[in-house]
Amino acid sequence: MQLFIGNKNYSSWSMRPWVLLRQAEIPFAEVMLRFDAFTPDSKFKTELARHSPAGRVPVLVDDGFAVWDTLAIAEYLAEKYPDRQLWPVERQARARARSVCAEMHAGFGALRSHLPMNIEAALPEIGQRVLREQAAVRADVDRLVQMWSELLVAHGGPLLFGKFSIADAFFAPVVKRLVSYAVPVPAAIAAYIERVQALPGVLAWSEGALAEHDFLDFEEPYRTCA
Amino acid sequence: MQLFIGNKNYSSWSMRPWVLLRQAEIPFAEVMLRFDAFTPDSKFKTELARHSPAGRVPVLVDDGFAVWDTLAIAEYLAEKYPDRQLWPVERQARARARSVCAEMHAGFGALRSHLPMNIEAALPEIGQRVLREQAAVRADVDRLVQMWSELLVAHGGPLLFGKFSIADAFFAPVVKRLVSYAVPVPAAIAAYIERVQALPGVLAWSEGALAEHDFLDFEEPYRTCA
Ligand SMILES: N[C@@H](CCC(=O)N[C@@H](CS)C(=O)NCC(=O)O)C(=O)O
Ligand SMILES: N[C@@H](CCC(=O)N[C@@H](CS)C(=O)NCC(=O)O)C(=O)O
Repeated sequence: MQLFIGNKNYSSWSMRPWVLLRQAEIPFAEVMLRFDAFTPDSKFKTELARHSPAGRVPVLVDDGFAVWDTLAIAEYLAEKYPDRQLWPVERQARARARSVCAEMHAGFGALRSHLPMNIEAALPEIGQRVLREQAAVRADVDRLVQMWSELLVAHGGPLLFGKFSIADAFFAPVVKRLVSYAVPVPAAIAAYIERVQALPGVLAWSEGALAEHDFLDFEEPYRTCA
Repeated sequence: MQLFIGNKNYSSWSMRPWVLLRQAEIPFAEVMLRFDAFTPDSKFKTELARHSPAGRVPVLVDDGFAVWDTLAIAEYLAEKYPDRQLWPVERQARARARSVCAEMHAGFGALRSHLPMNIEAALPEIGQRVLREQAAVRADVDRLVQMWSELLVAHGGPLLFGKFSIADAFFAPVVKRLVSYAVPVPAAIAAYIERVQALPGVLAWSEGALAEHDFLDFEEPYRTCA
């Protein structure tokens, strides 16, 4: 199995299945397609078009068969490796995990556009300013805090559904944003953030991100250099 | 089981699980929460908050347990009613169906914002103008045509994966947009559009939409009255 991904420092979507595969100890080959640009004639898009018609990373290629989009990849892996219990085993917990992953997948637009993932950056002042100026970002953060708090209480932690599941992989890039922009959160959420950051799969991805040293203007609304 | 939905004329997300349930002949009670506004103190949001923390429709409530988000609802129903074969039975076809549904779920932003669903409206001139002015909408339409064409050929029709599946329910609101805005498409796609419009579940939803007569300014970027 091959997983096509973008730059580790920037590609929040690529991070999700990569962390999932690593945490579940499923063997795979990583293929990095560097983000040169997202224009149709970019190297990224040209190379990617050979593997997926949807033009976005991540893409999982299993024996020549392409599965694109993080959620479809997660479902594919959950079906292929049932023993890894990637979704919670209990029926309602599994449904709830799918609800919050799908909510993330299509939502949190304000958080995603104003606080883009940038693992190597430390931008606490930007975080403060964005939170002050953007009510929609505050609403997104409030919803996250509410959601995570409820799940941590309902399932008793340490992760959202007790032990590691697809849901934690889905929120790992969000955790990285909250850290980069120093978004203030309640203690129980700060503790969850620490636990996610300490997951071997998240640590390994973050190390890769820090080793990249690839400053891309179009992914950097706030910094002028690394 | 109850399905909470918004206005049938406007709520493209609500349409998906409703059509799915109807097509699969799964009994459910519809609960319509009229869109008065999306502000936190609106009647819609206040009522909805009693059933789901995510603040959006659709929501499926099964024996008091809430499943929100279209994709999570689809997976929940597929698990609960395996005999209905809501996803394609064959492993790779199922993965492909999930890829295109997830692609729809998080994508096609230009199409969704410039050509909002409005079943009772006939706005061919707006469609022409938007297609002329918005390259991103043209790119979204091109991707749809490419995706549907490939699937119709690969699975032999009449629907995207042969017989009806979650994928057709996911694209049903898109079909309605292409019709309202008279977006030109190749003959094979026009024929697929006709077939989707003729599905009993889609017909029943559309009849409901036409019976509503509820003109909401904030859902009407183009019309000034019905
Ligand atoms: N819904 C997709 C989103 C993937 C996505 O947007 N990936 C970005 C990189 S993080 C991309 O490939 N962007 C290229 C583009 O927007 O043209 C998923 O969940 O996989
Ligand atoms: N990702 C959600 C999207 C649902 C959605 O955006 N629903 C709209 C109505 S079509 C809504 O409830 N909007 C309320 C709001 O945006 O505050 C899903 O797939 O169910």
